[in-house]
Amino acid sequence: MAVVAKVSGEDRRWLSAAIALAERGKGLTGNNPSVGCIIVKDGIVVGRGWTQPGGRPHAEAVALELAGSAAAGATIFVSLEPCAHESARGPACTDSLITAKPARVVGALTDPDPRTAGKGFDRLEAGGIIVERDAMAAEALAGLAGFVTRITKGRPHVTLKLATSLDGCIAMADGSSRWITGDAARAHAHLERARCDAILVGAGTVRADTPKLDVRLPGLEVRSPRRIMLGSGMAPEGWEAIRTPQDVASLDCNRLIVEGGAQTASAFLRAGLVDRLMLYRAPILIGGGKPCLGDIDLTDLTEAHGKWRLADTRMLGNDRFEVYEAFPCLQA
Amino acid sequence: MAVVAKVSGEDRRWLSAAIALAERGKGLTGNNPSVGCIIVKDGIVVGRGWTQPGGRPHAEAVALELAGSAAAGATIFVSLEPCAHESARGPACTDSLITAKPARVVGALTDPDPRTAGKGFDRLEAGGIIVERDAMAAEALAGLAGFVTRITKGRPHVTLKLATSLDGCIAMADGSSRWITGDAARAHAHLERARCDAILVGAGTVRADTPKLDVRLPGLEVRSPRRIMLGSGMAPEGWEAIRTPQDVASLDCNRLIVEGGAQTASAFLRAGLVDRLMLYRAPILIGGGKPCLGDIDLTDLTEAHGKWRLADTRMLGNDRFEVYEAFPCLQA
Ligand SMILES: NC(=O)c1ccc[n+]([C@@H]2O[C@H](COP(=O)([O-])OP(=O)(O)OC[C@H]3O[C@@H](n4cnc5c(N)ncnc54)[C@H](OP(=O)(O)O)[C@@H]3O)[C@@H](O)[C@H]2O)c1
Ligand SMILES: NC(=O)c1ccc[n+]([C@@H]2O[C@H](COP(=O)([O-])OP(=O)(O)OC[C@H]3O[C@@H](n4cnc5c(N)ncnc54)[C@H](OP(=O)(O)O)[C@@H]3O)[C@@H](O)[C@H]2O)c1
Repeated sequence: MAVVAKVSGEDRRWLSAAIALAERGKGLTGNNPSVGCIIVKDGIVVGRGWTQPGGRPHAEAVALELAGSAAAGATIFVSLEPCAHESARGPACTDSLITAKPARVVGALTDPDPRTAGKGFDRLEAGGIIVERDAMAAEALAGLAGFVTRITKGRPHVTLKLATSLDGCIAMADGSSRWITGDAARAHAHLERARCDAILVGAGTVRADTPKLDVRLPGLEVRSPRRIMLGSGMAPEGWEAIRTPQDVASLDCNRLIVEGGAQTASAFLRAGLVDRLMLYRAPILIGGGKPCLGDIDLTDLTEAHGKWRLADTRMLGNDRFEVYEAFPCLQA
Repeated sequence: MAVVAKVSGEDRRWLSAAIALAERGKGLTGNNPSVGCIIVKDGIVVGRGWTQPGGRPHAEAVALELAGSAAAGATIFVSLEPCAHESARGPACTDSLITAKPARVVGALTDPDPRTAGKGFDRLEAGGIIVERDAMAAEALAGLAGFVTRITKGRPHVTLKLATSLDGCIAMADGSSRWITGDAARAHAHLERARCDAILVGAGTVRADTPKLDVRLPGLEVRSPRRIMLGSGMAPEGWEAIRTPQDVASLDCNRLIVEGGAQTASAFLRAGLVDRLMLYRAPILIGGGKPCLGDIDLTDLTEAHGKWRLADTRMLGNDRFEVYEAFPCLQA
């Protein structure tokens, strides 16, 4: 996405900080987007906030509460267009903002939710506030991919996680897979769990491993997401089941991680339902082990190219971590 | 290897340059090590050289020829201990150096060849020259791994090359593998061919693809290495055949690249004959394709760990290139 910078470098730094604040709510805001907001007056932060657990209060409400009367004449940086619709759970942020009388609102991304979709920015302008729209759309979109995918595609944003050896195996031929990756990679994977809304594995994995799929990081245990099984049988106690990959639409959540096994991973890829690959790769060779994927309906090697764009990579201990995004990627 | 720096930072820079010069001879020096030599007097390079095609003249001879009388009183940086043995093809470099009367010789690594093995340095010292031994042993060893492996293990240094998809496949289920990696990765692989002495593939690959295994880079076509087939049948015209992985010892060369297929790769790994992995990984998924490896006799996942150390990684176009070295690695 070619977004022309509409704002100053300083504005971009504040807006980046607002986008970063939004990360704090990830996995906790249910169907609501996790948004970040920073209120700056004379170069000083007078308020900041992010979407609270359950989705309310919104980031702007938290930040305005902190700023109090200091919000008047200030600049408000927000990672997503303020909502224009009232709800039983609170007033529209647009109205609260107009009441607070800031001089300027810098918004990173227009809300794709049809109830807002530009109407929030319009009303702020009509209220006499200077508005910068879509000031950092691509950056904000990266954090809001779950929400935007649900709104625009009617299904969660799907990340496929694969933890493999250098030769692409997820287990030895006898099924043993403890452990392929190291502590740092496993901790990172648990952090990613804490930041999503639901985790899915296939019925085969449920039968073989009865995995807990919880977040085993000190202090974050409470952030364990919903557990979903793909398959025809009964889900274990406390789990939900879906029958086909397409049924993820019924989960009504923003961010889903698919953690395997190979049949399930392949089924999601065949269905074109993978938005992001998260690969953990240990510096080991297994040889003749279980491949991480089965058939994905590829008919010609040339078709395999140009589908995945490297979005992030780093070392986690001795393991390499890579994120690939489906290309063409989500557009605001 | 914990090598204590014995020389100054400036010495190390000159010695690094000598080690870098040695790269120029790689793949051209037959059984001889490719060595680099720089002669420095009053901060000015008065001579430099590297081992010439076929292995003679040696780096020191080339550099001394250039320096002429300027070598007297100079410092000579050399990536490997000067040879102490005369041969029908020329005098021992140690003798030529003593005649040239440098003040100092800084050697990166002691020659493991028993005909020299410290005797070169000893004789230089006996000739009144200040000698620094093993000044950058680890760095020099990286370049001389082929020669050192042949001398110390009686077989070539073996690199296993694998070009795979993200899911570890070297081909689709029907065998098609054109192309997995992109132009930059393929060019890099051809450059690596030019720098080795022999390339080996399995009889299955010969039967399926009759690969050329030549260097297809403008100007480097003449540097195509020996072609070796692993298998029981007749090798194609212009090829050599070996019957088992262990037979690589009979090839009497420094650096061998094993380019597949999966059976052959696995056979070398099972035999413990892989010193280095060279992985090219394209950002594509194949799914249900041909795995890059078959069984490698791994009985327990814990045994797979700690065997490979990441030595280099970079992007080649859209593909990731990684080099892993077998651990514990070669010691001088
Ligand atoms: N190392 C790792 O990272 C890792 C991660 C996960 C799993 N694993 C291993 O992988 C193995 C299990 O993998 P797997 O591939 O055999 O099984 P799986 O993918 O976990 O589950 C297969 C089951 O998923 C359901 N399923 C798959 N595709 C479907 C589709 N298109 N529509 C509806 N249902 C579908 C079917 O359930 P029904 O039979 O109910 O119809 C199928 O039997 C286990 O050994 C596990 O330990 C390893
Ligand atoms: N994409 C890539 O990078 C790439 C690279 C190379 C190959 N490939 C593909 O891989 C396929 C061939 O692979 P492959 O695994 O079937 O065959 P292969 O490894 O090329 O050759 C197998 C043959 O090697 C010999 N061999 C293997 N292990 C041996 C051992 N321990 N001792 C003695 N001989 C041994 C045997 O020869 P005999 O039958 O003569 O006994 C065996 O039949 C082809 O389709 C090729 O296109 C792809």
